[in-house]
Amino acid sequence: MTEFSFTLLATDGMARRGRIGTSRGDIRTPAFMPVGTAGTVKAMYPEQVRATGADIVLGNTYHLMLRPGAERVAALGGLHRFMDWERPILTDSGGFQVMSLAKLRKLTETGVTFRSHIDGSAHELTPERSIEIQTLLDSDIVMQLDECIALPAETSEMERAMELSLRWGERSRAAFGHQPRRALFGIVQGGDDPGLRARSAAGLRSIGFDGYAVGGLAVGEPQATMFRVLDEVTPELPVDRPRYLMGVGKPDDMIGAIARGVDMFDCVHPTRAGRHGHVYSRFGVINLKNARHRDDPRPIDEQSPNDNCRRFSRAYLHHLVRSEEILGAMILSQINLAYYQELVAGARSAIEAGTFNDFAAETRAGWARGDLPVL
Amino acid sequence: MTEFSFTLLATDGMARRGRIGTSRGDIRTPAFMPVGTAGTVKAMYPEQVRATGADIVLGNTYHLMLRPGAERVAALGGLHRFMDWERPILTDSGGFQVMSLAKLRKLTETGVTFRSHIDGSAHELTPERSIEIQTLLDSDIVMQLDECIALPAETSEMERAMELSLRWGERSRAAFGHQPRRALFGIVQGGDDPGLRARSAAGLRSIGFDGYAVGGLAVGEPQATMFRVLDEVTPELPVDRPRYLMGVGKPDDMIGAIARGVDMFDCVHPTRAGRHGHVYSRFGVINLKNARHRDDPRPIDEQSPNDNCRRFSRAYLHHLVRSEEILGAMILSQINLAYYQELVAGARSAIEAGTFNDFAAETRAGWARGDLPVL
Repeated sequence: MTEFSFTLLATDGMARRGRIGTSRGDIRTPAFMPVGTAGTVKAMYPEQVRATGADIVLGNTYHLMLRPGAERVAALGGLHRFMDWERPILTDSGGFQVMSLAKLRKLTETGVTFRSHIDGSAHELTPERSIEIQTLLDSDIVMQLDECIALPAETSEMERAMELSLRWGERSRAAFGHQPRRALFGIVQGGDDPGLRARSAAGLRSIGFDGYAVGGLAVGEPQATMFRVLDEVTPELPVDRPRYLMGVGKPDDMIGAIARGVDMFDCVHPTRAGRHGHVYSRFGVINLKNARHRDDPRPIDEQSPNDNCRRFSRAYLHHLVRSEEILGAMILSQINLAYYQELVAGARSAIEAGTFNDFAAETRAGWARGDLPVL
Repeated sequence: MTEFSFTLLATDGMARRGRIGTSRGDIRTPAFMPVGTAGTVKAMYPEQVRATGADIVLGNTYHLMLRPGAERVAALGGLHRFMDWERPILTDSGGFQVMSLAKLRKLTETGVTFRSHIDGSAHELTPERSIEIQTLLDSDIVMQLDECIALPAETSEMERAMELSLRWGERSRAAFGHQPRRALFGIVQGGDDPGLRARSAAGLRSIGFDGYAVGGLAVGEPQATMFRVLDEVTPELPVDRPRYLMGVGKPDDMIGAIARGVDMFDCVHPTRAGRHGHVYSRFGVINLKNARHRDDPRPIDEQSPNDNCRRFSRAYLHHLVRSEEILGAMILSQINLAYYQELVAGARSAIEAGTFNDFAAETRAGWARGDLPVL
């Protein structure tokens, strides 16, 4: 049995190249984690997810606790077996989605009660129950329950939520106990206030976690604010633990965050965008719904290492998207996940070579040049 | 360039084992053709369709003429290139779906005018235009335009539609001309009237086609009626040409029709049923929406040669179906298409061995025994 570990292999400025060791395999960092919301990365077979280069996927505690239910997943052998993904899984605490999806939410010191958006059934999520659920799912990386608020917000509100999250972090740590095969990550809150963020990070450090997430970003604030907070927060985090920026993001967000010392990302964006006909590529975002692609025999990118970017014409993909064919969602989700993995793989190589700034500049320049000229 | 050919390799009673040769590869008969409605077999990559054992897929002229348009597909290199399926494609004439899907239809001796169900645009389909569209799509097996009516129907109405279909068959034959790389199939009509069916078959034979389809079945009549009509019709068809039962069907329909001398089938049923949570298997139909599967760790069929039937638990598939996850549609479409191919492959082997009746009886006995007992 391999215990959870983090090895910092190289740095380039603030950017870090690392390796997370888990009993289910290594995670190369910087890492992008595809989101397997309800036990599936949408429109993808697990082996296709792996083939894009993903070392780890994320599971959503909120969705899974409601359906099929954590005890049921445990009885069926855990989430890995359930979805046929044998590599590491990180589960969120469920808190974020309770606040964004559930009905009749009521937050107290104890936790949060709510009703399911699926069938209206009543549920409670406390720091202890969140740990229990994530353990039942057999998660490899467990997240503490926190309270994430939208920005902009009043300082007093950011402080209240940050302090509550710290107390929940302490309860999460106690409930988690000693589980060397699993990791528990704390979550830095504090909105866009440097002082609150520093207090949050200090509080979490003194509790002690296996990794540190930055929460409460990408919740409505400008990218510049997110980067400024990261500039302030990452120096407050232990060098020898992985750093995870939750719910981020677009490719440009990831490049900027890697430059600021972030190791891990997750976001539904690549799969969701794919289902809506948007493709990420070295040319930037391509909207395949656009009529300019209707007669275009060219593939997305004939130089891409990804077969799906070379074998299908833009005209065909346009047709699939316009016809709302499932195959369109399948292909475009795959293309986007593969591009995200290509991006973090490129970042990893560049950090090792000490050329991350060049990599970031070249990548951004490609996006800025934009798509192929219209035929 | 291989010219279209049909070789009868073995017979067992009325059941036939054959090989259709085309310039894009052979088709082993009895053959089931997955339906690639609008340029995609729904929820399946083309290589997955091939991996199930399919030698040929069907494309729908009605859908493709409306979107993306036959001239556009031709400009993009034809339907094979468009959907990345390099093996044979059969296209229907468009007539059946005009009558079932289009708006403001008007049928005359010339053809049928209608409005698109997608955008209301006006279109005309004549025997000549149908051949032209199918040629633009670069179809390997082209179907004549016919008029297919629902059963039960008045004899006079069945006769009128049959006679019109014969005249349209003649015009289709003339429009098709001499294209040795492509085949043109005529379509027997005549409802459930033996005399009309015999006149239709005789008329088509005297025109001369590369293959003969039986149309106007599986349109509301009992299975016994369909089998009775097949008993009457197949002896009227040339022995040395393939016979295609259009739009059929369920596994049990195919077994019965193979016993009556049919070589080719197509149906949307396996993919559509998969999208609705129904799985075909040696245990018969399994409704994965049913709560009995909610906690069932067993796979669909641990003895299946199909990986998807062994690797995922029924509980997981139940979860995907209930959650309306795209992966559910993907897996269940694959399972059903693979089972259909397993069935025709079994029929082919049995006919070669002279044991088709045993194969049919054993297969039906398995369906009759039903699904695994509830855990």
